[in-house]
Amino acid sequence: MALAEQRIICGVNAVASALDSGLRIHTLVCAGGRKNPRIQKLVDVMQQQGIAMKEVERSALTQMCGTEKHQGVAAYTDPLKRKDLAQLLSETVPGERFFLLLDEVTDPHNFGALIRSAAAAGCQGVIYTRDRSCRITPVVEKAAAGTLNSVALCQVTNLSRAIAELKHQGVWVYGLALEGAASLYATDLSGDVALVAGSEGRGIRPGVLKACDGAVKIPMPGRVESLNVSVATGVALFEVVRRRP
Amino acid sequence: MALAEQRIICGVNAVASALDSGLRIHTLVCAGGRKNPRIQKLVDVMQQQGIAMKEVERSALTQMCGTEKHQGVAAYTDPLKRKDLAQLLSETVPGERFFLLLDEVTDPHNFGALIRSAAAAGCQGVIYTRDRSCRITPVVEKAAAGTLNSVALCQVTNLSRAIAELKHQGVWVYGLALEGAASLYATDLSGDVALVAGSEGRGIRPGVLKACDGAVKIPMPGRVESLNVSVATGVALFEVVRRRP
Repeated sequence: MALAEQRIICGVNAVASALDSGLRIHTLVCAGGRKNPRIQKLVDVMQQQGIAMKEVERSALTQMCGTEKHQGVAAYTDPLKRKDLAQLLSETVPGERFFLLLDEVTDPHNFGALIRSAAAAGCQGVIYTRDRSCRITPVVEKAAAGTLNSVALCQVTNLSRAIAELKHQGVWVYGLALEGAASLYATDLSGDVALVAGSEGRGIRPGVLKACDGAVKIPMPGRVESLNVSVATGVALFEVVRRRP
Repeated sequence: MALAEQRIICGVNAVASALDSGLRIHTLVCAGGRKNPRIQKLVDVMQQQGIAMKEVERSALTQMCGTEKHQGVAAYTDPLKRKDLAQLLSETVPGERFFLLLDEVTDPHNFGALIRSAAAAGCQGVIYTRDRSCRITPVVEKAAAGTLNSVALCQVTNLSRAIAELKHQGVWVYGLALEGAASLYATDLSGDVALVAGSEGRGIRPGVLKACDGAVKIPMPGRVESLNVSVATGVALFEVVRRRP
C-alpha cells in the first residue's frame, strides 16, 4: 500500500481510541527520548500485539503529521472507510436516521470536532461536500479524538442533490442559520432528521439552505449572537438527542 | 502605557467585533499589500474615526500576534477589564445570575470558545483559576471572536473557595463530568446557576468537583462518549438557557 493511501493518526487520545476501536494499526511512530506514561502504555500494548514500532526525531514526526501537536506519537493505520449516500441509506433504518451534513467546512479543528459531536450524538453518518471541504488530515483526526472510526463518512459532489435524496427518503433536513430562521426549540425534530452546518465565516450556501426543509437557529440571550460552528452544531445535535425517546 | 499592558486582538471578526462593542482601539495594524474587502472596510471605518494605522510585514504581524492566523489584521486596544468575585456578585441580580467557571483550562482555542459560548448564552461572568489557566493571548481573543468585551472575566486564586462563596449567595453550582454524574436533563437548573468545566484531558479536579452542589453529564447515545469540552459546555449552557422563562 502506498504511504499516501495510509491514514496517519496522531496524539495520545486519538491513537489510543483508534486502537480501542479495533482499527488495524500498521506502525506506531514515536518521538525518541523519554516517553510520558500514557505513550509508554500504548507502546507496551502494541508491542504485545506485534505492531511495528519506529522511533523518529520529533521534527520528523511534526513533518509527518503536518502539526506540532502530535504529543510525540502517531500511527499509520488502514485507510478510512467511506460510504456513498446510497449505501448509507440502505444500511440505516427509516425512523432511526440521524445525519449531520457539512457544507464546505474547511477548518480542520471544526471539521474534526463536528465529526466527534456527530459520533457522540449517535448520528449514523456525516455527509460532506467533496470539494472545498477539509481533507482528513492528522489535525482533523486529532480534533475528532479517534471518533472517525465510529461514524460513517460520506462525501458527495452535490450537497443540494444529496439533500433532495434525503428528503425523498423521508428525512427532514434543517439548516443551522442565524437569520430568517425558526427557533430550534420551536421546530419539530421528531422522525428521521439531518442537520446541515456551514463554514464558520460564510455559513451554509444559499442554494444549499434553500434545498433544506427549513432553517433553524439557536436563540441567544447574550449580548453577542455568535457561537463557534462546532458548539452551535453540538447544541442542535443534542437537542435532537434530548427529544428522542 | 507600556506595550505589554495593551491588549492585542487579531483576525477580521475579532477586530470588527471589538470595534462594534465600543472598545477603544489605539492602533490598527495591517499586513502590507492588497487587502481583502472586509479588512479594507475596517480600515475605512477606523480612518474616519481617527484611529492610528500601521502597515507591517506579514511576518511581523505573526510575531506580534503569536499566531499565523491573524488574517492580515490586528488591533492594539485598551486592556481587558477584569472584575473580582465580590464585584461580580454585587453587580448581578439574585434570581438572574448565570456564570461559567473554568477549572485550569489551558488550551487557548477551548478557552476562547468557552468564553464566546458563555457570552452568547447570556452568562454575566466567566470565573477562572489564576494559576494554570490560559492567558488572554491573541489566539484566545480570536477563538472568542471579540466576545471578551461582552462578558465579565473574573480570576480567582482558589476555585473551590469561589464555589463556596457562590453557594453561600444562593447560586447552584454544577460540575460537568462524565462519570458518577446525573443527567443534565434530569437536573433542576432553575434559579441562579453556575456551570463548571474542566480541561479537555483531565476534567474538573476532584476537590473542585466536590465543592459543587452536584455533577451533571450529557447523555450520549453514540458509540463514543466523548465531546470536545467547548461543545459539551455549550450544550449545557444552552440547556440552562432553554429552560429559562
